[in-house]
Amino acid sequence: MYSFVNDYSEGTHPKVLELMVKSNFEQNIGYGLDKHCENARGLIRDWIGMPDSDIHFIPGGTQTNMLVISSLLRPHQCVIAADTGHINVHETGAIEATGHKVVAMPAKYGKLTPEAIRAALDYHVGEHMVQPKMVYISNSTELGTIYTKAELGAIREICLKNGLILFLDGARLGAALTCKSNDLSISELAKLVDVFYIGGTKNGALLGEALVFCREDLSVDFRYMMKQRAAMPAKGFVLGMQFEALLQDNLYLKLAAHANEMAEEAARIFKEHGFDFHAPPCTNQIFPIVPNELVKGLTEEFGCLDQTKVDGNHTCVRFVTSWATTPESIDYLRKYMNHILR
Amino acid sequence: MYSFVNDYSEGTHPKVLELMVKSNFEQNIGYGLDKHCENARGLIRDWIGMPDSDIHFIPGGTQTNMLVISSLLRPHQCVIAADTGHINVHETGAIEATGHKVVAMPAKYGKLTPEAIRAALDYHVGEHMVQPKMVYISNSTELGTIYTKAELGAIREICLKNGLILFLDGARLGAALTCKSNDLSISELAKLVDVFYIGGTKNGALLGEALVFCREDLSVDFRYMMKQRAAMPAKGFVLGMQFEALLQDNLYLKLAAHANEMAEEAARIFKEHGFDFHAPPCTNQIFPIVPNELVKGLTEEFGCLDQTKVDGNHTCVRFVTSWATTPESIDYLRKYMNHILR
Amino acid sequence: MYSFVNDYSEGTHPKVLELMVKSNFEQNIGYGLDKHCENARGLIRDWIGMPDSDIHFIPGGTQTNMLVISSLLRPHQCVIAADTGHINVHETGAIEATGHKVVAMPAKYGKLTPEAIRAALDYHVGEHMVQPKMVYISNSTELGTIYTKAELGAIREICLKNGLILFLDGARLGAALTCKSNDLSISELAKLVDVFYIGGTKNGALLGEALVFCREDLSVDFRYMMKQRAAMPAKGFVLGMQFEALLQDNLYLKLAAHANEMAEEAARIFKEHGFDFHAPPCTNQIFPIVPNELVKGLTEEFGCLDQTKVDGNHTCVRFVTSWATTPESIDYLRKYMNHILR
Amino acid sequence: MYSFVNDYSEGTHPKVLELMVKSNFEQNIGYGLDKHCENARGLIRDWIGMPDSDIHFIPGGTQTNMLVISSLLRPHQCVIAADTGHINVHETGAIEATGHKVVAMPAKYGKLTPEAIRAALDYHVGEHMVQPKMVYISNSTELGTIYTKAELGAIREICLKNGLILFLDGARLGAALTCKSNDLSISELAKLVDVFYIGGTKNGALLGEALVFCREDLSVDFRYMMKQRAAMPAKGFVLGMQFEALLQDNLYLKLAAHANEMAEEAARIFKEHGFDFHAPPCTNQIFPIVPNELVKGLTEEFGCLDQTKVDGNHTCVRFVTSWATTPESIDYLRKYMNHILR
Repeated sequence: MYSFVNDYSEGTHPKVLELMVKSNFEQNIGYGLDKHCENARGLIRDWIGMPDSDIHFIPGGTQTNMLVISSLLRPHQCVIAADTGHINVHETGAIEATGHKVVAMPAKYGKLTPEAIRAALDYHVGEHMVQPKMVYISNSTELGTIYTKAELGAIREICLKNGLILFLDGARLGAALTCKSNDLSISELAKLVDVFYIGGTKNGALLGEALVFCREDLSVDFRYMMKQRAAMPAKGFVLGMQFEALLQDNLYLKLAAHANEMAEEAARIFKEHGFDFHAPPCTNQIFPIVPNELVKGLTEEFGCLDQTKVDGNHTCVRFVTSWATTPESIDYLRKYMNHILR
Repeated sequence: MYSFVNDYSEGTHPKVLELMVKSNFEQNIGYGLDKHCENARGLIRDWIGMPDSDIHFIPGGTQTNMLVISSLLRPHQCVIAADTGHINVHETGAIEATGHKVVAMPAKYGKLTPEAIRAALDYHVGEHMVQPKMVYISNSTELGTIYTKAELGAIREICLKNGLILFLDGARLGAALTCKSNDLSISELAKLVDVFYIGGTKNGALLGEALVFCREDLSVDFRYMMKQRAAMPAKGFVLGMQFEALLQDNLYLKLAAHANEMAEEAARIFKEHGFDFHAPPCTNQIFPIVPNELVKGLTEEFGCLDQTKVDGNHTCVRFVTSWATTPESIDYLRKYMNHILR
Repeated sequence: MYSFVNDYSEGTHPKVLELMVKSNFEQNIGYGLDKHCENARGLIRDWIGMPDSDIHFIPGGTQTNMLVISSLLRPHQCVIAADTGHINVHETGAIEATGHKVVAMPAKYGKLTPEAIRAALDYHVGEHMVQPKMVYISNSTELGTIYTKAELGAIREICLKNGLILFLDGARLGAALTCKSNDLSISELAKLVDVFYIGGTKNGALLGEALVFCREDLSVDFRYMMKQRAAMPAKGFVLGMQFEALLQDNLYLKLAAHANEMAEEAARIFKEHGFDFHAPPCTNQIFPIVPNELVKGLTEEFGCLDQTKVDGNHTCVRFVTSWATTPESIDYLRKYMNHILR
Repeated sequence: MYSFVNDYSEGTHPKVLELMVKSNFEQNIGYGLDKHCENARGLIRDWIGMPDSDIHFIPGGTQTNMLVISSLLRPHQCVIAADTGHINVHETGAIEATGHKVVAMPAKYGKLTPEAIRAALDYHVGEHMVQPKMVYISNSTELGTIYTKAELGAIREICLKNGLILFLDGARLGAALTCKSNDLSISELAKLVDVFYIGGTKNGALLGEALVFCREDLSVDFRYMMKQRAAMPAKGFVLGMQFEALLQDNLYLKLAAHANEMAEEAARIFKEHGFDFHAPPCTNQIFPIVPNELVKGLTEEFGCLDQTKVDGNHTCVRFVTSWATTPESIDYLRKYMNHILR
């Protein structure tokens, strides 16, 4: 059985592991001040074309979201997000636990729009309500979709006009960048947002997200915040090594592209059987809508999760591929589907 | 140059690394619900002789402290700690950031006493002051000292009588348990506290602390809290593997014993030169008091930190050994000292 | 000009003022431990028929909401409210500032339903999401509507079955109890909820809300929480006096009934002119929908606020009456409307 | 019996009450935006000689402290205070509940010194510790002492040099300003601090503190914070009226001077009997040290509180006078002491 439950079921890519093994007995300074982190920062700065960006390595995504939001907002300020946004739904109130409201707006296919941001701004008038100060988007989104250059540009524009910080959650940024319909380069993206992160955990790292501040004024004293929120691991050099390895030879993008291809194959299977999707499949998360009687079997065979009832007879199930997904496992899925539906 | 700056400068012990490499391509369930974590929990339960204890793996020590304290206290309650306690000094206010006051009491050699706890209780009277509800101690302490069975028993007693939860920070528990003057077994210790953790990061793990709830009623919904405080890594199985490996063949204690021996050797060097110590050396952290003119050289050669001025002419410097410290590095320290002081 | 902007534009009812003046030079113990508070507690207990209820006087409504919610929830727990609920919209994130998410559910006419609570419970599954633990309702609601005995009973039932604490915000409880269509007595209401408050500020008091814990286990150490959240005024006896006076001779209900009657008259005027309402008018807040061209004049003449666009041509405006509203001011409104619409 | 337990046992000064009665039926805008507040702001600006200061009326002292500190600090920053400071001891952790550590420094007679501030700055080095950003002092202090112009100037200097915000808690500012040994005018004081408040509750008001921002950049969006922390009462005009009345004809200072005189008389009685004081008596709080056998009687007759054991035989008791203390009650104290000690 191969599990499509998520993209963090395996350890780390062999190239990362290799570097970890090779460097295991080095003595390195703690807390992210070591040479591996510094090297990885350089690689990232080169890649994104932003030599002055301030970069920090954080163990996980929820932590990064919580840290960025609580560091940049004053107590009375809120963050606007899609109602399906990770911070709104799946972080057990981590943002609210730092004191801030998440203003959740309806979003088609997980994508926030300037119109939704506008509506949130118009609704929040005056000191009896929270003050919108940040916009949070995910790319790829929680539904596997991506933002186009035009869409991100439009969001950027409304943010600029209204003094909103634009924060892009890139837990699955690799999947977005290597999506066939993507028209945004990493350096274009970096110029359109104020702060974003390059997700490692879900694209081949053992753990770690690379947080990039595109505006220097936003990261003042950020390491204090990291320490306070317990996001500054003693052996921070391990995080640096992840990105050192992943950013060699374009590995990061290659892994993501592989995951997307595997997902495309999987989506094809469902399409061939005439199934529709909860959101248009384009990255490594796909959401086919299947007859209820298939759910139990699919879950047992493939560990797919996030089953939402679509109507009385149909359920949406999530399949996630990763850098480690093999063509054989997709073949097995095809055979299984053919068998079950013949 | 060998750095004695801390006990988390290297990666992980080869046995841990071996297991990580071997298991790297397994698919495991996320968030600590996997078989490695379950296996590690069993090994810990056997070791501590507490088959019903509830055990969770947390990435780091600050995170564990913050989690335990914020989960177990109501908003108006405080935790009593030694003034040198890690939570009071070196966590950038992580505890206060969750809303709780740390009531810091003067403590000789980093050790809290029943008298100090009594004083804190007597001082806090009524609803205009925070309500003491927890006692936090570290073993070994931040000054490298340890609690005897009698001392821990006396603290336990005052806690029981006053409805205080007793929480033991075991970031360096291995060092305490293998200290030559220690008279507490792990199972005795577990019976004397309400909740404690077995530190991995500072004793051979890549990262990870094993948090043990000795009273089941204390851990209700604890995983919600872990998620909210961003302490539930996606690849939680990596944490499980650390303890799986460390608890094989007594490795955990062997590593700590080695670190203690290396520190004992180092302490001997300073003693031979007639130097005194800020706290009696007994585990893997020692605090020799040296003439000011030696500080620069020692720092450059050995990376020792935490330099506190003792008087106009003397400074206390911290040397920390680890599972990875070699006898050769101690020899080098001896030669250096002999050379510099001849 | 008479302002209908809200029900807290004047000072306090003459009977309250009289008691304040009469008692001004008494020496009273601070912090709500005085004889006036004790007397007021007794009057409330008699009125609600709950001799063992624990009662506290809090300066304001936002403070009471924030206090109750933050005292009764553990960090990972959330409160379910109508999307129009005061805690969700008009408290500048006071609840989130204490760390808790407000889960807002769509609500017709400001009233939460068992179905909406059920939906919130069904949506929140497992430790990656906040845990519903409390239901917050307002009676009368933010739209001036009220809960029937059957409706409150049904909410009570789903709360009991699911371990949810039921908290009723009674900032305008007088208006609800004296509404002509009300079928709930105060003692019935007290038996159906876990904690509620009797609003003073909006019904004749200078300031103050009387918070009633109907279950003793919920108020353990509550005074600590009051002090911590700055809700325990030094001259707490002033709060006690408000309720002492308001609960004499049924004054509290008489004042609310008067406000409702004035609102009924005002509603009649709008009905006579053929206007519809955003929610069925029944207490002291009414929401007529008027042609846009009337809004400016109404605002200038009557200070009515909360103007929401209903469609391109119509706007909903809020008129609020109080114990101090005179029949003359209603007459003036009638004349104004007749004049403007003749 | 007359109680010397504190300075907030009575209602409000007749002049304040008179204004409240006179204005009771006016309709005023809510939330502190009314003409009484505006008028009071003008009177304060004139008095302190700072026409551009931003002034807000807050119901109570704990609330003001919590608001100022949580509004002006970023999450990783702390406030330095005397160990006897109100925020450190008597607010049930209200400051920590907003996420900030209070760094308490030893202080003689309740007064913080530049040396103590220097020590706190020197101790907190780097991102593993909280970052000092504010200094909190009380004038008069919790021990009834006051700061001289030179002392406040020296504190100001160290704050300026180190980027620290200087916040002065003036809950008993009247007592300080009218102390015979005081050499600071209100306008000098206002120039030496960044933010301070003029306490009403403890000097004749029913409730209310007037918070003054001496630097405009510090109060951006402060009303959002007031609302969020539940410090913006609906009938805010009541707070404005307090200061409107108290600032007429120098009433505020007259009341404070009276309280000080009464305390001076009371202190004289204890001195005549040869008793010493815990801190030099100079304002309306005095702390005579009396033989233990007197404590019970004094407490019963005069309600004095805050009894701290000084040695086996002596106890320090607090006597507080107010604007309402009568010469007759001081005479009674004299007779009582003469009788008991004859």
